[in-house]
Amino acid sequence: MKVKVGVSNRHIHISREDFVKLCGEEHDFYSVRDLSQGGEFSSNVLVDVKTSKNVIRNVRIVGPFRDKTQIELSITDSYFLGINPPVRMSGDFDGAEDATLVYNDREVFVKGAVIVPNRHIHANREELEKYNLHEGEVLSVRVNGDRGGILDNVIVKCKDSYSFELHLDTDEANAFNLKNGDVIDIIER
Amino acid sequence: MKVKVGVSNRHIHISREDFVKLCGEEHDFYSVRDLSQGGEFSSNVLVDVKTSKNVIRNVRIVGPFRDKTQIELSITDSYFLGINPPVRMSGDFDGAEDATLVYNDREVFVKGAVIVPNRHIHANREELEKYNLHEGEVLSVRVNGDRGGILDNVIVKCKDSYSFELHLDTDEANAFNLKNGDVIDIIER
Repeated sequence: MKVKVGVSNRHIHISREDFVKLCGEEHDFYSVRDLSQGGEFSSNVLVDVKTSKNVIRNVRIVGPFRDKTQIELSITDSYFLGINPPVRMSGDFDGAEDATLVYNDREVFVKGAVIVPNRHIHANREELEKYNLHEGEVLSVRVNGDRGGILDNVIVKCKDSYSFELHLDTDEANAFNLKNGDVIDIIER
Repeated sequence: MKVKVGVSNRHIHISREDFVKLCGEEHDFYSVRDLSQGGEFSSNVLVDVKTSKNVIRNVRIVGPFRDKTQIELSITDSYFLGINPPVRMSGDFDGAEDATLVYNDREVFVKGAVIVPNRHIHANREELEKYNLHEGEVLSVRVNGDRGGILDNVIVKCKDSYSFELHLDTDEANAFNLKNGDVIDIIER
């Protein structure tokens, strides 16, 4: 069984409330590029993520708005910012770190919002049936080549708007020299 | 069989000639911290690595001097600098990228010097015998936990001054949430 790789760079899902605090009531928020997962888009807004130690500039906000702001960073980013966020599935904020979002002269402190995304595969119902997978199943994937190996603990997530894709962060992709659109094997372990 | 992890941050091995061009004939060059591998040391000198796209500041020079300057970066660094260095063992410059070293107001352009280090295990002769390994052998290592998996293509390198240690770059370490001094399994594949 094969799956296409989607590399997730650091990004932010933001609540409408935090967006208004940060960018103002009247600020534009629109798609500059639709993402492979139905309904999600790279928005026009880039903000800085700041801690007491450092700042990462121009981090993309991904739309649409969510109930709670979620900042997804790599472990490389986390060292740079001097924080220690947990590896979590989207929406699981257990132990999540704090950070400050900065846009022009405004700042919003977001408590318990920073996670490192857990590797996962997106699939819709049809794809689950086709590949005989189920929601929450834990898979492994194999990469060949001089940076080859296996990534365990890849969790299957299902939504009607999803399409079949493995989501890795930039540390994982770069450790295995994988690029967006590469196709790799799902294996039994 | 177990091995201790050593995480290699980006660093530079420099020739005496390039060092003198960059820092001047009289500049100090001494150890601020001995590295785990006999004879190598983190030097007192930090320089910038520049390309036409970007610059990474304060990259540590590792001593002693080598015959040829070698700049070891992660793939994350390479994207940032807009270059595409090959994954290579130390001393193998086949296809290596160019970069410019910057120190104060001086610059040295180094041609074919940038590589991404290939995962490897250092061992001395005694350790090879003890663990029944041989120089150039290709191993795999296994990591447990929520960022677990397997890294293939780990090459055994031998020198009398070495001590038994797995060297990964920061992308690899962060993909598996490994830290300096962690101990992981060498496995048969």
